[in-house]
Parts: sequence; C-alpha cells; structure tokens
Amino acid sequence: MRDFDRPAVSSMTNMTIEKEVADSGGKTLMTLSTPALVLDLDRMDRNLARLTALMDGFGVVLRPHLKTAKSIDVARRIHPEGPGPITVSTLAEAEYFAREGGYTDITYAVGLDPYMAPRALALCATGVELKVTLDTAAQAESLGQAAAGHTSKPSVMIEIDCDGHRGGLVPDDPKLVDVARAVVDAGLTLAGVLTHAGASYDLHDPMALADAAENERASAVRAAERLRAAGFDCPVVSVGSTPTSHFARDLTGVTEVRAGVFMFFDLVMHGIGVCQIDDIAVSVLTTVIGTKPDKGWILVDAGWMAMSRDRGTSKQAVDQGYGLVCDVHGKPLDDLIVDQANQEHGIIALRPGSKAALPDLPVGTRLRVLPNHACATGAQHDAYHVVAGNADDVVAVWPRMRGW
Amino acid sequence: MRDFDRPAVSSMTNMTIEKEVADSGGKTLMTLSTPALVLDLDRMDRNLARLTALMDGFGVVLRPHLKTAKSIDVARRIHPEGPGPITVSTLAEAEYFAREGGYTDITYAVGLDPYMAPRALALCATGVELKVTLDTAAQAESLGQAAAGHTSKPSVMIEIDCDGHRGGLVPDDPKLVDVARAVVDAGLTLAGVLTHAGASYDLHDPMALADAAENERASAVRAAERLRAAGFDCPVVSVGSTPTSHFARDLTGVTEVRAGVFMFFDLVMHGIGVCQIDDIAVSVLTTVIGTKPDKGWILVDAGWMAMSRDRGTSKQAVDQGYGLVCDVHGKPLDDLIVDQANQEHGIIALRPGSKAALPDLPVGTRLRVLPNHACATGAQHDAYHVVAGNADDVVAVWPRMRGW
Repeated sequence: MRDFDRPAVSSMTNMTIEKEVADSGGKTLMTLSTPALVLDLDRMDRNLARLTALMDGFGVVLRPHLKTAKSIDVARRIHPEGPGPITVSTLAEAEYFAREGGYTDITYAVGLDPYMAPRALALCATGVELKVTLDTAAQAESLGQAAAGHTSKPSVMIEIDCDGHRGGLVPDDPKLVDVARAVVDAGLTLAGVLTHAGASYDLHDPMALADAAENERASAVRAAERLRAAGFDCPVVSVGSTPTSHFARDLTGVTEVRAGVFMFFDLVMHGIGVCQIDDIAVSVLTTVIGTKPDKGWILVDAGWMAMSRDRGTSKQAVDQGYGLVCDVHGKPLDDLIVDQANQEHGIIALRPGSKAALPDLPVGTRLRVLPNHACATGAQHDAYHVVAGNADDVVAVWPRMRGW
Repeated sequence: MRDFDRPAVSSMTNMTIEKEVADSGGKTLMTLSTPALVLDLDRMDRNLARLTALMDGFGVVLRPHLKTAKSIDVARRIHPEGPGPITVSTLAEAEYFAREGGYTDITYAVGLDPYMAPRALALCATGVELKVTLDTAAQAESLGQAAAGHTSKPSVMIEIDCDGHRGGLVPDDPKLVDVARAVVDAGLTLAGVLTHAGASYDLHDPMALADAAENERASAVRAAERLRAAGFDCPVVSVGSTPTSHFARDLTGVTEVRAGVFMFFDLVMHGIGVCQIDDIAVSVLTTVIGTKPDKGWILVDAGWMAMSRDRGTSKQAVDQGYGLVCDVHGKPLDDLIVDQANQEHGIIALRPGSKAALPDLPVGTRLRVLPNHACATGAQHDAYHVVAGNADDVVAVWPRMRGW
C-alpha cells in the first residue's frame, strides 16, 4: 500500500479553478449535502497518465470508454487539446458527447438494435463518424435498408467473441466473412473488428491477466486477418478492457485499445490487481446518522441508492461489502466496510473476523466510501464534486449524463 | 396464477389521457427507444385500491412511502382528491412533493443528519408540516439548536427498532424516555413513534408474516405506551412495510401505516408471497440485440443500467436472476430470466434445470422484464411510460425525481 499523503498539486489552471469554485458555491466536504459523489482529480489524472503512457509505448490509440464517466468535463480532461476518439455504450452518450464537446470519432460498442438506426443516421448527418457494432448479417441488412439514400452513414465494427463472455463471433466462425459481405452488400463501410475481454474481470493473477490480454489481441488480429484474406478492408483492430489494457505485453496488429473504468478505478479493479486502493478516484461522501454499539453498527446516509446494488467484490478474495470506509480525507479505516445497504441507509461494520476495534464515529461524522464498481456507483449520481490536492474544497461540480 | 387478460379499463379520465398522449408523442411499446421503464396503470390502480381498502378496514391512515415512485403523477393517482399524508426517504423528495404537488403532511423516515437541519427548517417555513426521525438525544439537541428562533419547526418521530433490522431504540430501551425528554427540552414537538419491520423481507410464510406484523404493531404500541406513561403526548403510532401491511390481522393502537413498494410490487414481493406475478406494475421494455444459440443466450439492451444490480431474489426459493422475461404484452415466457447483466447488455437464458425450449427471439424482438426490486429498477430511469388496458400505446410519460 502506498502512502496517502501527496503534494497538493493539481494541473487544473488557476483560471479554471476560479470559475469552477464559483459554480460549486464554495462548498467543502464538510458542507456538501450528503450522500454526494466525490472525484479526486489528482488520482484521476494519475490514472489517465498511466494508461496513456502505456498505450503510447505500444504505439496504439487509446479510445476511452466514456460509459464510466458520462461527463464532458472528464472527457475534456482526457483530451485537453480537443476531441479525440471515444467509445460509448448508448446512443444517448454519443449524442451528448457530440453536442456538448464536438466529439466526432465515436464507436458505439453495443450490438445494434435495428430500431436505433434513425437516431444513428441523424447523428451521422451532423458530421459524426459513428461506428456501430454488430455480429449478424440481418443487422447489417437492416441498417443498410434504413441508411439507403443517406449520404452520411455509420460504418461497421464486427463484434468478435474472444472469451465467451457475451456477444460476437468467435474469430474462426465461418459466418464472419458472411457478415462482412452483408455489410458491404448493404452499402456500408466495414471499419474493422472489435472485441472485449470481459472474462478478465474474473481473474486476479498477473500471468493469467497477461494471457487474457494476449488472447484478446490474438482473437481480434486473427479475425482481421481472415477478413483481409477474404478481400475486405479491415483498418481498425480494436480490443480492450481495463484489466487487459494494463497487463498487455504485446499489441502487435492492434490499432486501438478501449478502456473505461481505468480513469476512476474501484474495489473490483483492486481485487483483480489492476490498481492500488489509493488509485481509486471516486468515493461517496456520507454522514453518520445513527449508531448501534451493541450490534457493532454505524448507520450512514449512503445506502444502495448512493452506492448502487453492485456487489462485485463478493466473488473476490476480499469481499468489500457495499464499499470500503475511509475518513473524510480518503484514508481507509481499519477493516471497516458498508456491510449492508437499504435504500437510504448504509450499515457500516467491521469485516467478519476482524480484530480491529469499532471506531467511535458519532452522529454527524463525515466519511467517504470507496465503491465496488465506479460505473454503477457513478450512475446513481447527477454530478461529481471535484476535489484536488488533498484539500476539502470542492473545486468544481461536473454534471453526469444518463438515460438512453 | 391468475389470468393475464383483463378488460381494457382505466380510470384515467379521457381528458387526462388526451393531454398525456400529446406529451408522449404518440409512442407505443413498439416505437419507444429501449430500454424504457413501463408502468401498467391498471395493475398499479388495483394495487393501490387493495391496500387502501385493507387500511380503511382497520380504520388507520395509509401514509404511502413515495421513495418507490418518486413521481408526482403517481402521488396524484394515490390522492386524486388532493394531497394526503406521505412518507419520504430524502429531503429532496420532501421538497419535490411539496413544490410539485402542494404536499404538506410529510414524514421523513430516515434518521436525521444534523447537517440537514437548515433544509428541513426552510421546508417548514414554506408551510410543510415535516416530521423527522431520530433515536438519540444528541440529534434532538442539535435540531433544537438549529431551530431556535424559527417559528415553524419539524416535529419529531422517535425511531423504534422492532426486529433488529437497522436503527432505532427497542421499545423497552431505558433511553426512549430520555430521547423524548430531549425532544421536548429542545423546544420541539414529539409527534410519535415510528417503526419498520424490515426483517419481514426475509420471510415467505403467511403465518410468519402475520407474526411479524403483530410484532411490529406491538413494538410501536409498547413504545408509545411507555412514553405516555412518562407523561409525553405520543399522538402518532406509525408502522409499516409492504409485507406486514398486507398480512396484519390487528392494528389496535396503530394510527398509520407506511408502505411503498406495494404500489408497483416486484419479484421480491412475489417471492415473499405478497403479490401475484400479474400484480407487478413496472417492467423494463427491451429489444433483442443478439443471440448465441450455442450457449442458449439471447442478448438484450437491458443490462444492469436498466434493471439495477439488485439481486434480491437470489436468497429466495426462486432466483429470478436480474428479472423475469415477458413478451411485449407482459405475459411471462416459460422459465426465461435475465441470467447475467453487463452495463448495457442483458443475457437472457432459461432457468438452470428448466426443461422448456429456448424460444426463437430474433434480433429486434421486443420484450418486457419484470424487476426484482421496483425501487432499485425505477431509480435507473428518468420517467415512466404509462400503458393501460393491455394496449401498446403509451398514454402518458411521467417523470421521476432523483438525488438528495
């Protein structure tokens, strides 16, 4: 575990901070209404810099998945010099990032619902180069029919299944070439292949993670090679997950890497071994609203509405309950987790078997809880309250988008 | 299991329907963007009528808990003749229902965070008779200090612990009288006692549920009697949970019942035995986006972002995964559940051990998924798409509020 005290350095410019502080109404971690989502800017910046450097080293493009952040302000932090390539999980995200930030290079990495074609086409008509994902000839034909007569059309990524995790075609599936042909026959452009090593979330051994990364790479490259051998262009070879992107040793043949949760990290990623606890950049600020000393309970106002119902660490070696409890400055408290959650009540207790003493945290005490899953916890909130340099001041309030 | 086909009757007035249909843009279950939250008005009305009749029979007030619905339109459906008594789980809900619907009789049934006093006082200053919940003398003293000099103050419900589920004082706790004294000494009005049989969620036997209801009643009444014997007024004796409110046989001494999820019901309530499957009034409309016949999988666009991560049925006799799959009209499909969920992907499969055949549901098929937990699934959405009379038309779009 690394040291928690860091220099009070933030790369936000003074001018930005001044404007944002005005917007945040001068709140601090002691005066915000709770529960509230807190984003540690220094930790996020460090996480962004780490993966960017890794990808630069491989000479591949980083196409961040913005389903985790759902925030134009976070996107701007990733791309300070102007919009870059991004990944989204809903068309609403694509529309939002195009509208709010002028993003035009967008990959929509969820299999295409045919009903969504009109919205995809409307987005293309505004100048967005949208890449959609599919794995059947029927989806390509349906999209082609909807797009007939349109000058700007989505291009197509064929989804490849590298580890049996969810959708896509296995790299050697005979249908792969048929789908590519259906794409071209439908008057659409084949942009490339896309895979996601979702099964890497179940790993925790560095060797196994490196193997998962190599399998992900090899699967995507194999699919691309088959398409090229059949005469198709396949310029983009897209892989990605936060665990594999951090454990890849070779990305030969890959052109881009997608990852999302890396920007914030969370307890699940810690359990996998991708990050340290003090890399986790999001937390939920909460207040003690009751105590039950006879039961060893401390009640807080962060229930599942604030934390989400995600119990992603329940299958890991260390079960973190609904979250790991820290003091208001983000320093973990010995063996203290959110053990149970009702809608607006969290019940804090020591881990089972802990020999630590339950701390005296009277009603009114402020705490921060690190989440199991940053994507799920983030989705419960409308804004990030940004802190920097280990200070209590909220230097910015960054809205989150939601919906479909 | 009762029959699913019902007469196309809705008690919405024609004028209301005409206005709402205009707002909904003439959408149907076949043209809405998915995933989308659907509310079956007939089922909700039936659920409302059932519990209202039960409470009328006992001569007690129903104080619905609006943390489930978070919608002024649902509240108006409960109180068509004007605002009535309500329960909320956040001050933001109290502010919303006061502002949007003129609600003034509001019980905030979560232990008071001392930082919230200024907001509570501001709400009282607008004419809201707010009752707050606490279980320590320190909370009473803190609220009293904050309220000093204010003419309109919250009154106080003392939280009683009837089953060890979360906060509150057990009815015979010597501190009960001390807390009441602290309330009065702080210049506040003691409104009464409040308890919640949260442990009833772990039951499924009608006898045990009736016992839990009786224990809830007896605990609250015992606490009220102790306070009265000590010389305090204790006009309100408030109990409530959806399971106990439906299984109570006697409510002697109780003045009001709080319940929330009863208006929609869900699979957890079905597992407890409080409702039939065809009482469940909320569902998530989804579209098939892929199939994996070799794995027995059907992929839909309702992942955990649309369903929530709630796995409340996992500990019940029938594990419903992330939800029970129905056709677009709401009729359950044999043994089909959302077995796994990623952020925007749901994986539909047959229940383990099922002998049913996986139905042929090609890409583009529309389905509806009944949720484990209506409160949690609702929280993932910004609006209800209201249907009535087994028709596909969306007759209204009702916004939901969120946040704290």
